[in-house]
Amino acid sequence: MAVTATETSTPTSRSFGPAVALSCRECGERYELGPRFACEFCFGPLEVAYEFGAVDRAAIESGPKNIWRYAALLPVPENVSDLPNMNPGLTPLVRADRLAAELGMRSLHVKDDSGNPTHSFKDRVVAMAVEAARVFGFRTLSCSSTGNLAGAVGAAAARAGFESCVFIPAGLEEAKVRMAAVYGGKVVAIDGNYDDVNRFCSELIGDPAGEGWGFVNVNLRPYYGEGSKTLAFEIAEQLGWRLPEQIVIPIASGSQLTKIDKGFRELVQLGLVEDRPYRIFGAQATGCSPVARAWEQGHDVIQPVKPDTIVKSLAIGNPADGPYVLDICRRTGGAVAHVDDAEVVEAVALLARTEGVFAETAGGVTTGVLRKLLADGVLDPAAETVVLNTGDGLKTLNVASAGVTATIRPSLAAFHDAGLA
Amino acid sequence: MAVTATETSTPTSRSFGPAVALSCRECGERYELGPRFACEFCFGPLEVAYEFGAVDRAAIESGPKNIWRYAALLPVPENVSDLPNMNPGLTPLVRADRLAAELGMRSLHVKDDSGNPTHSFKDRVVAMAVEAARVFGFRTLSCSSTGNLAGAVGAAAARAGFESCVFIPAGLEEAKVRMAAVYGGKVVAIDGNYDDVNRFCSELIGDPAGEGWGFVNVNLRPYYGEGSKTLAFEIAEQLGWRLPEQIVIPIASGSQLTKIDKGFRELVQLGLVEDRPYRIFGAQATGCSPVARAWEQGHDVIQPVKPDTIVKSLAIGNPADGPYVLDICRRTGGAVAHVDDAEVVEAVALLARTEGVFAETAGGVTTGVLRKLLADGVLDPAAETVVLNTGDGLKTLNVASAGVTATIRPSLAAFHDAGLA
Repeated sequence: MAVTATETSTPTSRSFGPAVALSCRECGERYELGPRFACEFCFGPLEVAYEFGAVDRAAIESGPKNIWRYAALLPVPENVSDLPNMNPGLTPLVRADRLAAELGMRSLHVKDDSGNPTHSFKDRVVAMAVEAARVFGFRTLSCSSTGNLAGAVGAAAARAGFESCVFIPAGLEEAKVRMAAVYGGKVVAIDGNYDDVNRFCSELIGDPAGEGWGFVNVNLRPYYGEGSKTLAFEIAEQLGWRLPEQIVIPIASGSQLTKIDKGFRELVQLGLVEDRPYRIFGAQATGCSPVARAWEQGHDVIQPVKPDTIVKSLAIGNPADGPYVLDICRRTGGAVAHVDDAEVVEAVALLARTEGVFAETAGGVTTGVLRKLLADGVLDPAAETVVLNTGDGLKTLNVASAGVTATIRPSLAAFHDAGLA
Repeated sequence: MAVTATETSTPTSRSFGPAVALSCRECGERYELGPRFACEFCFGPLEVAYEFGAVDRAAIESGPKNIWRYAALLPVPENVSDLPNMNPGLTPLVRADRLAAELGMRSLHVKDDSGNPTHSFKDRVVAMAVEAARVFGFRTLSCSSTGNLAGAVGAAAARAGFESCVFIPAGLEEAKVRMAAVYGGKVVAIDGNYDDVNRFCSELIGDPAGEGWGFVNVNLRPYYGEGSKTLAFEIAEQLGWRLPEQIVIPIASGSQLTKIDKGFRELVQLGLVEDRPYRIFGAQATGCSPVARAWEQGHDVIQPVKPDTIVKSLAIGNPADGPYVLDICRRTGGAVAHVDDAEVVEAVALLARTEGVFAETAGGVTTGVLRKLLADGVLDPAAETVVLNTGDGLKTLNVASAGVTATIRPSLAAFHDAGLA
């Protein structure tokens, strides 16, 4: 049921900290904080609305060394650090001088989210969903996943004492499947692609079998999505409380990109950073590039595609937040671009060779798009730039083609004979 | 050349921060800080000797969010944070309430070092070796490795701009080999086990082909080893500046265990923690348990073994620091124990299921030994206990036997038919 703004400004509980309502991104209609995700009137996506208190840098800096240092900006209770949760975040912002030199850039950082507990940025969003699921009394955590999310949900459910049942498209990378399963929950493969899995989960929510289930990226999506803001908060804090001038972000559903923009704007609104322009660039794999195609063609509507790429973590053919991504990239003076699978493999190797960061294919997409847009003169090589690596190369080993240089007997003669000296 | 204590107390450079000399662990002979590792007189191992300045908790707490917050306790320059390095550390100390409950313990934490950049504790020791290699002017970083170290060296060399050539036994896990290779250095497999690889590297140091090479765990070993102290520092700080009462540590060469003990003692010496008793427990896999065997038999000498275990990261049959491990476990009232491969697999699953931590087999060894020594009444279930996970399950996927629960068509009917509701 919809509530008025007056009602939502006096929440009866602080389970969600500064959050006061859900609000429709399209029509602005407001709802009580609950396990809902779409507007009853216009079917627009719901977002968390806040009434922030005063927040200063010092309080954040003295907080926990994870995302909960930003609890005052998230839909979580003040005591969130005392509750069982994977506590992700505060991953390294790597000063990438060697990669910058190779690309002819002045200042480049890699935000390396492989440092999270299950080695992808998904731990951030799941951490939010866990807190909401606890408040709503769900017993089972679930999701539709391209792989990383399944592992993050399995781990978080184990840590927090939920049951879990996650849904993935058949044919994912072995590491992602095994990681999802190791935590003891159910892992169900669906014959189809991610969009089929997602449709199935929407049906399951309406079925009695889905009762008591929190689907982190469906009926908990408004809370879940807020987790991506922490990437924006950390990047700004790690740059010394400054927004980057340019940032390259991968696009799967597009949610991460929209929430990083939201995070930057909240920091400005709260006076935590100076209001200076930033340009947001979206990155897709050519084999699943519906948003990049729309960008190229100047369309506002996203034409869904059937994914065909090695970049499985970004293989969402019908990205829910695609239109918002186009808006944001236009508004900020950015762009959306794509690189093909060969360029992805090359970019993964480039990032590893220059910075010692072993990215999953999604990191190859952002690094590849970074290189491409520099070459095309779209990105400014003189501007302070951040590129995201949102996952871990150990989960997409199939693209790391190099193996041993040589196998030899344990003798100096063998070493010299093999031409290794 | 050996130098007197007077000479070493006035170092001409601060390249090594508070470190003033190398000192023989056996006879106490002191040497200038250099790329040496064995005493010329008694062949004992060399350790870093310090003259610490005043160090207080507040200074550490306001330092970098990685091991360099402890720079004043390490052989590194004051400006170490400005130099290209993987900057590992400050990994989560996970409050393991669910595992504690299952094991009947009062207080248990998991120090989860899979959060390091290449997902093992080896990033800590390599970070030290990189700094020393820079000072000594080495151009190539090298090591003998059971797998994790190869990846850590490859990544660190890439980040810091060294060449690299690492040596591993043939037949390692695929993830470890590919990870080592992805950074663009050479990866040489040796027909033989780790001890063969290690012997080969010692030969290579004496060969002209090895000139200009820094072998992180051979000629840079005194510096390298100090990195493990940061595990001790972090655990104490994360417990609220308190030593744990019990700690379970894996044994490969034994170096990590001895340096954690050294770290605890330095914290006491500097007044950073209260001097209270702690008990150190060493953990090995049954198929490579020379230290545990010596412990059981009451021997002071380690009888080398030929490793036969799935726990490849601990498969060192002739552990250099074995005798020191025995000393420390005796002195602190601890013990050394072992678990077999089946127990390791079970313990990996237990840790994943209860805490959402996906450990590599070495973490299965420590968790398995924790469980065993509790059952045997050796570990006190009422004492504040820390167990180490030093690596990542994604690198030993072969032991994570679970896969998908079911594969179904994307329909509610299929979901119900598969008995998943």
